[in-house]
Amino acid sequence: MEKEQETLQTWKERVGQELDRVVAFWMEHSHDQEYGGFFTCLGRDGHVYDDLKYVWLQGRQVWMYCHLYRKFERFRCPELLDSAKAGGEFLLRYARVAPPGKKCAFVLTRDGRPVKVQRTIFSECFYTMAMNELWRVTGEAHYQREAVEMMDQIVYWVRKDPSGLGRPWLPGTPASESMAVPMMLLNLVEQLGEADDELAGKYAELGDWCAQRILQHVQRDGQAVLENVSEDGKELSGCLGRHQNPGHALEAGWFLLRHAIRKGDPELRVHIIDKFLLLPFRSGWDPDHGGLFYFQDVDGLCPTQLEWSMKLWWPHSEAMIALLMGYSDSGDPALLHLFYQVAEYTFCQFRDPEYGEWFGYLNREGTVALTIKGGPFKGCFHVPRCLAMCEEMLDALLSRLAQVPDRGAASPSADPAC
Amino acid sequence: MEKEQETLQTWKERVGQELDRVVAFWMEHSHDQEYGGFFTCLGRDGHVYDDLKYVWLQGRQVWMYCHLYRKFERFRCPELLDSAKAGGEFLLRYARVAPPGKKCAFVLTRDGRPVKVQRTIFSECFYTMAMNELWRVTGEAHYQREAVEMMDQIVYWVRKDPSGLGRPWLPGTPASESMAVPMMLLNLVEQLGEADDELAGKYAELGDWCAQRILQHVQRDGQAVLENVSEDGKELSGCLGRHQNPGHALEAGWFLLRHAIRKGDPELRVHIIDKFLLLPFRSGWDPDHGGLFYFQDVDGLCPTQLEWSMKLWWPHSEAMIALLMGYSDSGDPALLHLFYQVAEYTFCQFRDPEYGEWFGYLNREGTVALTIKGGPFKGCFHVPRCLAMCEEMLDALLSRLAQVPDRGAASPSADPAC
Repeated sequence: MEKEQETLQTWKERVGQELDRVVAFWMEHSHDQEYGGFFTCLGRDGHVYDDLKYVWLQGRQVWMYCHLYRKFERFRCPELLDSAKAGGEFLLRYARVAPPGKKCAFVLTRDGRPVKVQRTIFSECFYTMAMNELWRVTGEAHYQREAVEMMDQIVYWVRKDPSGLGRPWLPGTPASESMAVPMMLLNLVEQLGEADDELAGKYAELGDWCAQRILQHVQRDGQAVLENVSEDGKELSGCLGRHQNPGHALEAGWFLLRHAIRKGDPELRVHIIDKFLLLPFRSGWDPDHGGLFYFQDVDGLCPTQLEWSMKLWWPHSEAMIALLMGYSDSGDPALLHLFYQVAEYTFCQFRDPEYGEWFGYLNREGTVALTIKGGPFKGCFHVPRCLAMCEEMLDALLSRLAQVPDRGAASPSADPAC
Repeated sequence: MEKEQETLQTWKERVGQELDRVVAFWMEHSHDQEYGGFFTCLGRDGHVYDDLKYVWLQGRQVWMYCHLYRKFERFRCPELLDSAKAGGEFLLRYARVAPPGKKCAFVLTRDGRPVKVQRTIFSECFYTMAMNELWRVTGEAHYQREAVEMMDQIVYWVRKDPSGLGRPWLPGTPASESMAVPMMLLNLVEQLGEADDELAGKYAELGDWCAQRILQHVQRDGQAVLENVSEDGKELSGCLGRHQNPGHALEAGWFLLRHAIRKGDPELRVHIIDKFLLLPFRSGWDPDHGGLFYFQDVDGLCPTQLEWSMKLWWPHSEAMIALLMGYSDSGDPALLHLFYQVAEYTFCQFRDPEYGEWFGYLNREGTVALTIKGGPFKGCFHVPRCLAMCEEMLDALLSRLAQVPDRGAASPSADPAC
């Protein structure tokens, strides 16, 4: 038990120190003092190699800064809050392509002119997260109004009428559902409902709907999570239907687990750990070189995505969160050992001890394929969110251990009687 | 000289045998006997792993089959022609999303229902190539009518009004030109004008315009070919402006060289060999592992595309054509040696002696990263076009050598006096 405690303590310290270094990297290099918002195209040492502003990464960084400010005393510094507010103002002013319409751009010029629009909901989702978290730290009502109005628009697009997103209807396009959509919505439900009974009530049915839709992605008699299924939960034909994204399944896993814990549904918790944590980890982990594959084909065929065998940072940060949350919930030591396995690989392969932040893209063998620290798809989000959540969970596990000194294991279950 | 002749002869035989094997692969595995058209999602051994039909790959295969039928006596077999015609009929019936509108789908279901539409001209360009070549082998006028009508629509989209392509105008989008567009159009001008004085005349000004636009992509005082420039030929800022695609530059090189040879412009020929053959080859060739990088940043920064360091089949097949054409035109032995260098790498790394056709995607070190032989972006086109053109050029070089037995080199220049 002492050994157990020592290992948890060591990881808590590693994770906490790494969080400090990562936040320092973004604070030093990413703030646009002139226009507000953040540069996210940062080279290995933090130099800005492009000044385009990706809306979802702007929203994510605002959210992250506010979240750290709110949850960690050591991050309660004016610089973090001021930068988050400047990012929020940038989004309020420029994110929407044709206000008062809610559709947001995918990417803006440095001074806020739209460059590209995607026909999806993701820019808008991170806009919502940013606004809700800004409201939580500032108490300013207009942020929350923005968050709720955008949320309602997103829900309308997803559940009532997607035509506002601009995708043309074509007779050959299968009516498929990407797991990303209910996942993202479930995350928003959790975000908006945190310590807010009114909104938690408003979105309760939506949360259940999201969970049910995500669970439909478990296919093949429970032996695989598929990224795309038909709207009524059937497997689709071809590459689209066979496509797997282990990191996404693990991320969905901890969204679902958090939902099930809140609902107090023990059977669902066990099911989620089995299907969304253990199954994708086992099938997605590269037995030869370690690390999680980016994409797989459920029949073991070769995926058509050129990057399928690369190791990306975010599936690993999501796996760390999911496995530690699974252990915290179930007390199953196998999950803790998997957390250590992923965390060791991740800290060893992705971390950059020289300049801070993590590399994002390794080749199959684990060597760095792209030296950038940020880009169109990597900003200040997955790494610090993972580190912050892991620090909190490790802290809670250590507190529990300290309270039950004679138990043979950490007994981290939410049920104190078990 | 005998050694020279021997090496050319050896390569001519290797290339010819490989062409036979490649064509056999597609004939055996890709024909859809039920609906017409071609399966292009083929695994290593030729099995169909998805039955989606990518319009540009349908057009390319029709073109390739007709071209082989027309140019090579050994491919003048009814099966090739019948399959090309069935592919052409499939395109005529299903490629356009909303006939009589000309916009084509990007991908169709096996039975021809549109799945996705791209807001570019490329499906339409390969549709045009297919129809023109079908007309050349069958003499049926309706194919040529289709080709010319589609060509005129494409030219209208490119030079007059792109709104029919469906791209929204956004105030932050730079008015940039991708080299792909004038390249593709120049290829169509050559295709339609071959042995056709009327169309050659009709499109002569367009051909010159394309050449001039492609030449604008030579930037940095003649030291680099950039993939995207402003409409008035200036370098663009950020990653977009610094982006390089060595395989594309080499492909543009042989399109341009063919144009300059037809125009009889010796200065332009020298310029093209220098800027579009030697320059991209030297900057794009990986000094550590061999092979051409897929993407580069002109300032040597890390590209943001995950696949930037991979070695793809098509830049190598285009380099083989370009370097051999450059040698045939200039007689510079350095170009012949570069051809041998690329051809050796290509035959050694991409060729699959077991099942036929070439692998398409190698990692940086040259090992196979994707085992597929065809997919959404690889069909029956670059490999057989390269092999067919190289066989013809090697044949012509050998004939010239045989006619001038006392000369110290192959003297392949188009100018018999030099």
